[in-house]
Amino acid sequence: MIIILNSKATKEQIDEMLKDLGNLGLKTGVINGEQKRIITLIGDISKVNVDGIKAETFVEDIRRISEPFKASNRIFHPNNTIVQVSNQKIGEGHFCIMSGPCSVETEEQIIYVANRVKKAGVSMLRGGAFKPRTSPYSFQGLGSDGLKLLLKAKKATGLPIVTELMDLKHLDLFSDVDVIQVGARNMQNFEMLKELGKCNKPILLKRGLSSTIEEWMMSSEYIMSGGNKNVILCERGIRTYETATRNTLDISAIPMIKKISHLPIIVDPSHATGLTWMVEPLSKAAIAAGADGLMIEVHNCPTKALSDGAQSLDPDQFDDVMKNIKPIISFCGKKLNEA
Amino acid sequence: MIIILNSKATKEQIDEMLKDLGNLGLKTGVINGEQKRIITLIGDISKVNVDGIKAETFVEDIRRISEPFKASNRIFHPNNTIVQVSNQKIGEGHFCIMSGPCSVETEEQIIYVANRVKKAGVSMLRGGAFKPRTSPYSFQGLGSDGLKLLLKAKKATGLPIVTELMDLKHLDLFSDVDVIQVGARNMQNFEMLKELGKCNKPILLKRGLSSTIEEWMMSSEYIMSGGNKNVILCERGIRTYETATRNTLDISAIPMIKKISHLPIIVDPSHATGLTWMVEPLSKAAIAAGADGLMIEVHNCPTKALSDGAQSLDPDQFDDVMKNIKPIISFCGKKLNEA
Amino acid sequence: MIIILNSKATKEQIDEMLKDLGNLGLKTGVINGEQKRIITLIGDISKVNVDGIKAETFVEDIRRISEPFKASNRIFHPNNTIVQVSNQKIGEGHFCIMSGPCSVETEEQIIYVANRVKKAGVSMLRGGAFKPRTSPYSFQGLGSDGLKLLLKAKKATGLPIVTELMDLKHLDLFSDVDVIQVGARNMQNFEMLKELGKCNKPILLKRGLSSTIEEWMMSSEYIMSGGNKNVILCERGIRTYETATRNTLDISAIPMIKKISHLPIIVDPSHATGLTWMVEPLSKAAIAAGADGLMIEVHNCPTKALSDGAQSLDPDQFDDVMKNIKPIISFCGKKLNEA
Amino acid sequence: MIIILNSKATKEQIDEMLKDLGNLGLKTGVINGEQKRIITLIGDISKVNVDGIKAETFVEDIRRISEPFKASNRIFHPNNTIVQVSNQKIGEGHFCIMSGPCSVETEEQIIYVANRVKKAGVSMLRGGAFKPRTSPYSFQGLGSDGLKLLLKAKKATGLPIVTELMDLKHLDLFSDVDVIQVGARNMQNFEMLKELGKCNKPILLKRGLSSTIEEWMMSSEYIMSGGNKNVILCERGIRTYETATRNTLDISAIPMIKKISHLPIIVDPSHATGLTWMVEPLSKAAIAAGADGLMIEVHNCPTKALSDGAQSLDPDQFDDVMKNIKPIISFCGKKLNEA
Repeated sequence: MIIILNSKATKEQIDEMLKDLGNLGLKTGVINGEQKRIITLIGDISKVNVDGIKAETFVEDIRRISEPFKASNRIFHPNNTIVQVSNQKIGEGHFCIMSGPCSVETEEQIIYVANRVKKAGVSMLRGGAFKPRTSPYSFQGLGSDGLKLLLKAKKATGLPIVTELMDLKHLDLFSDVDVIQVGARNMQNFEMLKELGKCNKPILLKRGLSSTIEEWMMSSEYIMSGGNKNVILCERGIRTYETATRNTLDISAIPMIKKISHLPIIVDPSHATGLTWMVEPLSKAAIAAGADGLMIEVHNCPTKALSDGAQSLDPDQFDDVMKNIKPIISFCGKKLNEA
Repeated sequence: MIIILNSKATKEQIDEMLKDLGNLGLKTGVINGEQKRIITLIGDISKVNVDGIKAETFVEDIRRISEPFKASNRIFHPNNTIVQVSNQKIGEGHFCIMSGPCSVETEEQIIYVANRVKKAGVSMLRGGAFKPRTSPYSFQGLGSDGLKLLLKAKKATGLPIVTELMDLKHLDLFSDVDVIQVGARNMQNFEMLKELGKCNKPILLKRGLSSTIEEWMMSSEYIMSGGNKNVILCERGIRTYETATRNTLDISAIPMIKKISHLPIIVDPSHATGLTWMVEPLSKAAIAAGADGLMIEVHNCPTKALSDGAQSLDPDQFDDVMKNIKPIISFCGKKLNEA
Repeated sequence: MIIILNSKATKEQIDEMLKDLGNLGLKTGVINGEQKRIITLIGDISKVNVDGIKAETFVEDIRRISEPFKASNRIFHPNNTIVQVSNQKIGEGHFCIMSGPCSVETEEQIIYVANRVKKAGVSMLRGGAFKPRTSPYSFQGLGSDGLKLLLKAKKATGLPIVTELMDLKHLDLFSDVDVIQVGARNMQNFEMLKELGKCNKPILLKRGLSSTIEEWMMSSEYIMSGGNKNVILCERGIRTYETATRNTLDISAIPMIKKISHLPIIVDPSHATGLTWMVEPLSKAAIAAGADGLMIEVHNCPTKALSDGAQSLDPDQFDDVMKNIKPIISFCGKKLNEA
Repeated sequence: MIIILNSKATKEQIDEMLKDLGNLGLKTGVINGEQKRIITLIGDISKVNVDGIKAETFVEDIRRISEPFKASNRIFHPNNTIVQVSNQKIGEGHFCIMSGPCSVETEEQIIYVANRVKKAGVSMLRGGAFKPRTSPYSFQGLGSDGLKLLLKAKKATGLPIVTELMDLKHLDLFSDVDVIQVGARNMQNFEMLKELGKCNKPILLKRGLSSTIEEWMMSSEYIMSGGNKNVILCERGIRTYETATRNTLDISAIPMIKKISHLPIIVDPSHATGLTWMVEPLSKAAIAAGADGLMIEVHNCPTKALSDGAQSLDPDQFDDVMKNIKPIISFCGKKLNEA
């Protein structure tokens, strides 16, 4: 960490700051530039009050040299993490596709879709019971009833299930859920993250709509520092100025995460674009860029779906997509998980 | 609402869609353009399954003509809303400044700051007890103890208090809080918004970091459609590509909200920029643009603050800011609330 | 096109507007909604003064239904355009890789790099003679001398060359250049685009840093409406809030362009991220998403490069990248152009 | 400047780099952190090949400590620059309003508007002769004929004129123009900036649509390092995800420029929002935030304007705006320039 001083800094102020920092056990140094002076810090900077130092009138800026995340940092954990879900693995060559409807609507619907996606080669069922909707006038999901239907579909097909937790008060209902999804809007719901750090279930952590990769890592840090190491990251598009697609899939997040972290990362092309016809090319791109899995919305009848119909493939369309992406998974040296 | 069809649409498909829409009680029309055909819809479109229609292969797009928000819409409520907090009003010429530290740290601190900001002309005390922090390794706030200290400061000074709710499980602790703040990260925590719609306390709804003005209106709609009409909006900067400031204050949000909504809107220049020296010019700009209030961070000793020191003014600096912004409040025809 | 009126619109105003629009040869209609009224327009809307209509106090908004671009629009040109460069084709299955240094520096350098990339399987040489640099204190390129060196390398290797035009006054020097590049900063240099519309050389049109896909299409329209149909689009990353990469590669631009336009599109992963180690995974992703080519920076000695060293591969690294991406080009059904 | 090394750096590599940097006349130092090593550099870093160093495999990052701009930097020029235009000053308390139509259309029009805005209190006439339009099918301006009409209006009213240069080939026509405008799309047209650095006319440099403040400073550096110190900056809104306004006015750019630079800065609220009814509140906000002037579009008949009608005030509306903003100019201690 370095502290950049401005020209107002007096010798007394610098000396006092050096003393304070030394008392934290840090090794300090001073470099006198032509216009600016710099204090360098070595050691455990987690105790440094960064904001407090920035508030000093003689300090211009303070900059980290090391990443602030540890548990998810590849530097400290060089090997790829493999997350175990039921009897399958995710990461390190194990490729997982999670599919299903945006919202669980009826028992027939979810079991039908579950069977179809299983037949198409999917190894995990997704489905929303608690739904975050921009408008209070939109369908809000079936809630706990939806969760029960999902569990019936799990029983009927053997597919493990992943579904979103919207509020901690519902956590007790999630005991038979295989993977708990933290949605994009909750990526920085820190109370939720802390609580999920205490459970031992795999967590699917979606990237926030305008979260930096570093903030995403810090959110996984909330979960992992609590003791739960089973985090799967999910890139689902970020908000940009472009309006041709609902969001902009940040494809570079995949190699970047692979570089800085050991966690598996999957991609959700359905939410990234909001356009069904883009699911196939973006799925292929995600695979080629190194993703460990995909999350794709499939609905028995998108035109009658109670939510997100426009970005849901129907089972026949999905069969085609699966047929077209399976070869590229193998080509890229990954093995598609089986149900 | 209009539905844009593509060239694949057959007469049968169009007729069926018209029938379905007619069954919802809507008046429909068809316009045959040179390249594209359009279906027009008149009536209560809230029952239209927008996503489902978009999912039809013969539909290119569907566009709203009317805003999807109602309770906060000026069209239906032409008069400005005045929110009553304790014995003061906010909105319609009543200007409210809320100040205090980012985090409540000690009894001495909060009472000292409360007294200083009150003396400077502030009519509401802000202070964080539950703190959303990007890093799990940062100070997380004093929690319920912090809330107790805030209430002591309220008792000591008579200032009503505003503080952030981070999770519904803490809501019971907020019974003596005057204004409940929904932070930027929780603007789309819909379960929280629904619950706050059932209480009768004023809610300070901060704009999400990358939320559109329409999404912000929809979040206020969650609260208001639940029955709680006491919503104060707070613009606090949006995320853009610019890195010179922490966020970019969207000054045009003020006149835009005044145009489309009847709710009061205040501005938080401290979070908008992260720079203390920008608080004064941006406060003046916010007043000139028509804001109904300001929220400004003040700490007894920013360099020792446990959070956000870099953007906190010390009480003496704040005295100066207040001295410089008071005249422009009057000049713009607003009356500063008194404690 | 539809015009949305507000509640202030009087019968007289509407009638006059309908008359004016009718005089333009348009078929008009009026739809009376519950809150808003709409005028619908059918016919050649290119004569409609959109801004003027928006300026009417009784008009709320005006929205296009059809895309404003024609020459580059797939609706009017269903077949993919193939651009011929020297003896090779780009588009419709013909995949072209353009490589070379950011800046041409010396004769030895450019001929060495040209030979190396040719040997690696590249069919076109890129190199900057006129360089757009953010700082006036940075190396500005060799200018016309650089262009002469590029032509020597063309002669020595037989590789056609692509290089950037920064100002029309240099256009005369470009007579032996095979493809003229319009850089991201000049995507909306309309005088340049108009002039390039009059020449018959292939134009590589890079997307502006914050240009929408529609604006990009409109810029290609400037060239094409002038008579030059040989436009190759190049996605090179857009500016977003994320700072982990220099820009964010908009991978969805590839399928989107394929959907709405018939023009070939290539990807520049070097500029998109500014990171050499990301070139390979993003190249693969671009190929998988359907790109027609790649533009990759290669320098004989990146650590001594006078510009963009940090994002330039050295020839050995590039050999590896080529070895790894060639199979996926075939796998995706494309044929790599040969020199 | 500091260079951050990764764990691969060997003693030999570091020693060689230190030697190379020493040969540039720089004072170097090495700090051995726990995970990372840092090289510190003091002296004239303009000779350092930043990109080349970044390209070393053992280098992780390289960061500037000082700003890269000099001529426009307040550190080296503490006093505010006052730009003289004809017989008036801009900056340091002298407030200038520039108004007129987006496009010059006819002699009657421009002279009428010039007289009206002069009467309203404006001291400079703006008007477009060469127009950058997104679509080739839109009105492209009258070109040199428009320039002649502007000069007639200048003669008729005595108002100095400001108008946009779109291409260097037209520069000769600008000899009687008082202020040359560089539009947002040309902020990084470096050939143009270099040429304008050689003339002695005041330059109005608009901020690019997605340019950082630092990039903007670097563009002014192109002009100033050429010898022309008469640069007026113009904030005109940046591109963000928000669609409620055409752009987002970056109000914080005003105090930021005042902090880091000595150049005057004006604001264009017409382009910033695209909405006439926002011109007044945003003008007030700009004045309160410290701007040195405003540029406002006024058209004799916006509904018949050939460009930008939707954001143009008519002369009567403009009279009202002027009446309402004049008092706040004085209140903020500025003096409005007289014609």
